[in-house]
Amino acid sequence: MNLNRREFIRKNTIAGLGLAFAPSILNAGFLPAEKIRLGFIGVGGRGTWLMDLALKSNDVIVKAVCDIKQEAVLNAQKLVEEAGQPKPEGYSKSENSYLELVKREDLDGVVIATPWLWHTPMAVASMKAGKYTAVEVPAAVTIEECWDLVNTSEETGMPCMILENVCYRRDVMAILNMVKQGLFGELIHCQCGYQHNLRNIKFNPGVEFGPGAEGEAEWRTYHSIHRNGDVYPTHGLGPVANYVDINRGNRFISLTSVATKSRGLHDYIVKTAGEDHPSADIIFKLGDIVTTLIRCNNGETILISHDTNLPRPYSLGFRVQGTKGIWMNDGDQIYLDGTSQFDEWEPAASYIEKYDHPLWKKYADQAEGSGHGGMDFFVMHAFIESVKNKVQPPLDVYDAAAWSVVSPLSERSIENGGEPQDFPDFTRGMWMKRKPVFGSGDF
Amino acid sequence: MNLNRREFIRKNTIAGLGLAFAPSILNAGFLPAEKIRLGFIGVGGRGTWLMDLALKSNDVIVKAVCDIKQEAVLNAQKLVEEAGQPKPEGYSKSENSYLELVKREDLDGVVIATPWLWHTPMAVASMKAGKYTAVEVPAAVTIEECWDLVNTSEETGMPCMILENVCYRRDVMAILNMVKQGLFGELIHCQCGYQHNLRNIKFNPGVEFGPGAEGEAEWRTYHSIHRNGDVYPTHGLGPVANYVDINRGNRFISLTSVATKSRGLHDYIVKTAGEDHPSADIIFKLGDIVTTLIRCNNGETILISHDTNLPRPYSLGFRVQGTKGIWMNDGDQIYLDGTSQFDEWEPAASYIEKYDHPLWKKYADQAEGSGHGGMDFFVMHAFIESVKNKVQPPLDVYDAAAWSVVSPLSERSIENGGEPQDFPDFTRGMWMKRKPVFGSGDF
Repeated sequence: MNLNRREFIRKNTIAGLGLAFAPSILNAGFLPAEKIRLGFIGVGGRGTWLMDLALKSNDVIVKAVCDIKQEAVLNAQKLVEEAGQPKPEGYSKSENSYLELVKREDLDGVVIATPWLWHTPMAVASMKAGKYTAVEVPAAVTIEECWDLVNTSEETGMPCMILENVCYRRDVMAILNMVKQGLFGELIHCQCGYQHNLRNIKFNPGVEFGPGAEGEAEWRTYHSIHRNGDVYPTHGLGPVANYVDINRGNRFISLTSVATKSRGLHDYIVKTAGEDHPSADIIFKLGDIVTTLIRCNNGETILISHDTNLPRPYSLGFRVQGTKGIWMNDGDQIYLDGTSQFDEWEPAASYIEKYDHPLWKKYADQAEGSGHGGMDFFVMHAFIESVKNKVQPPLDVYDAAAWSVVSPLSERSIENGGEPQDFPDFTRGMWMKRKPVFGSGDF
Repeated sequence: MNLNRREFIRKNTIAGLGLAFAPSILNAGFLPAEKIRLGFIGVGGRGTWLMDLALKSNDVIVKAVCDIKQEAVLNAQKLVEEAGQPKPEGYSKSENSYLELVKREDLDGVVIATPWLWHTPMAVASMKAGKYTAVEVPAAVTIEECWDLVNTSEETGMPCMILENVCYRRDVMAILNMVKQGLFGELIHCQCGYQHNLRNIKFNPGVEFGPGAEGEAEWRTYHSIHRNGDVYPTHGLGPVANYVDINRGNRFISLTSVATKSRGLHDYIVKTAGEDHPSADIIFKLGDIVTTLIRCNNGETILISHDTNLPRPYSLGFRVQGTKGIWMNDGDQIYLDGTSQFDEWEPAASYIEKYDHPLWKKYADQAEGSGHGGMDFFVMHAFIESVKNKVQPPLDVYDAAAWSVVSPLSERSIENGGEPQDFPDFTRGMWMKRKPVFGSGDF
């Protein structure tokens, strides 16, 4: 299964050029597997949820589960048995037990849903062990880690899929459908972001965070103390990257970021636990709102907003604007030149319904009720089908790197007063030849 | 009436520090005039409209009108006579006839509503002739022009008001009222823009522009051919600057801008007149969407969007976000921590009504029906009252310079791949001592 890098590139190029999303050369001679065997690293809230979706698919046998918390492993084992499968092997001895899991010979793929700092080391180990790899967002935290993912995937021939579920959100895919049908004309500008009041997630319970705290408060909060940048760009950027064909005929050229002062987390601590609480003295480096502007090779611009410290309603703030129309997520409104009344917004709902994406039409029954409005079903389904068919997943390692690198680049831009930062070209020029695939196949 | 610069600064500082918006030292010994005498330079569509509002006020005698088009002067003279006043002197001989108008000794103030490139030369001439000066937006086109306005105002002691009507929009002022009452907490981030499909204004009639075309198509279109930047920032930025106290305890530090490719105007020409029309060969330098990010001294960021070439509904896209809440113009929604249901938008309308600004409560009857939803009434009223009372207008020369300089700075940033550009401090440090005034007085 190990293809050397040159061979990998050559073969994927041929596949990419000739067959937009047909099973690639990787599966030459294979019949799709009936069932695939997966291991899960990280079976906390998110990992367990993804595992549960895999179990429901009836295409997956869960062979192994890993988590630093033994109770999480026990719980995951129980769930697998309740699904009628043999008890999977558990790995929980140390932070490095995942290295044992990825080495197993009875695994086709590995799903990684751990704290951010573990994503790249685990994905790299998994690919090096010859496993199809799926990794939660962001896939990497530093520029070097982005290269680690790309280089390892190329060297091992193993795909690395970024599990960006929002790419599959129903309205997001309907808009993709409209984009591909040309209803917005030539795309000019997009906006997106992660605008989500995470104060009761960064602190839980009360104002607790770090060891002993619950859920993501155990680790996520440190990224607000020590980093200033868009630390979580992919929920917005993934869908937009698909709209403007990033890594597939287009690419990100450079970005500039600015950050506001930091007030929201301190305010929350004082409001919740009083100004005498020791955490009231913490200096949070993360600006409450980080705004990033990306220039693309084909002349589009993309605005990303990161806004997680302030009291506000949830919104990914999508805006898609082209020469013939505009969709705005905020206000759920749309305008199409020649169709809409001049200068008047229309409600977007009827368009979202009319242009429901073929994938959603096909799988809506299975997707509904599967979490996050069905998009989690799709993202797991895509990984499972990719493993079954031995093809590149529709969101690949170049997507993982290009989307995730926004974080370290934005940190560097902010540190330098908004200086523009160039994007590495992780495809090494292949973006000129690669064809768009997302949403055009069966998963 | 001519105060030298040092005296001007000293006196205005004392006034600014001690008396937030009481009549300044400029009017020591004066009783407010019963009627003031104004001259109008530029009596096309906009200038005539402003003159009409002045005539309706009953506080203004129009003594002189100037326009390069004689029929515009004749029309303006007729309107003044129809209002029961003596026929004003007309100036129309050449492009420089305005120099004759400003020299008249029977004028208290001059209102300038001409193409952008004339704003600063005319305002400078008016101030040098000892006249209170009001100038349409943007007040200046280059960095040097911004300094010309500031230096001339300081040297002559004559105020220069920027006629930014949107500062007085009813919802904009209600939000100002809420900001000042602390309902949004400490402000963190604002957004705004000029998002207005101007294609049938840049070309009129048909695809005509330049000499012989109608209205702004005569001159405005050239700014889309030759410039790439946010050429029209003040409708959005003026209100936001008032929210975050720019030049009055805060200031703009730097900006970065990016521009998209340019497609919209070419598309419009081809769609309207066919691809064989000679104008189909024009290369428009102005990117369809220009996005600018400003960092402020007190840690806020401001996003400005300029979007005038594409088919889209009108929106100034305001967003005001602080530690306790957020207002979004798009979708007309609001969220206030502790008041709104957790994570749920509320319609903004009831808040806009509840926090109707005192100025609007007082003058709504006069304002309504006066154009642009009443805001034109207020901006002329403010100028007239400032002249009558011999005080600084609520929007002054430092506002004019700081808001208008965004255009040349954004052009320079775009030309340099998004490099941040520092704002000049037009107040020469006085922003640290000046107090907020807008909306706190009687005009």
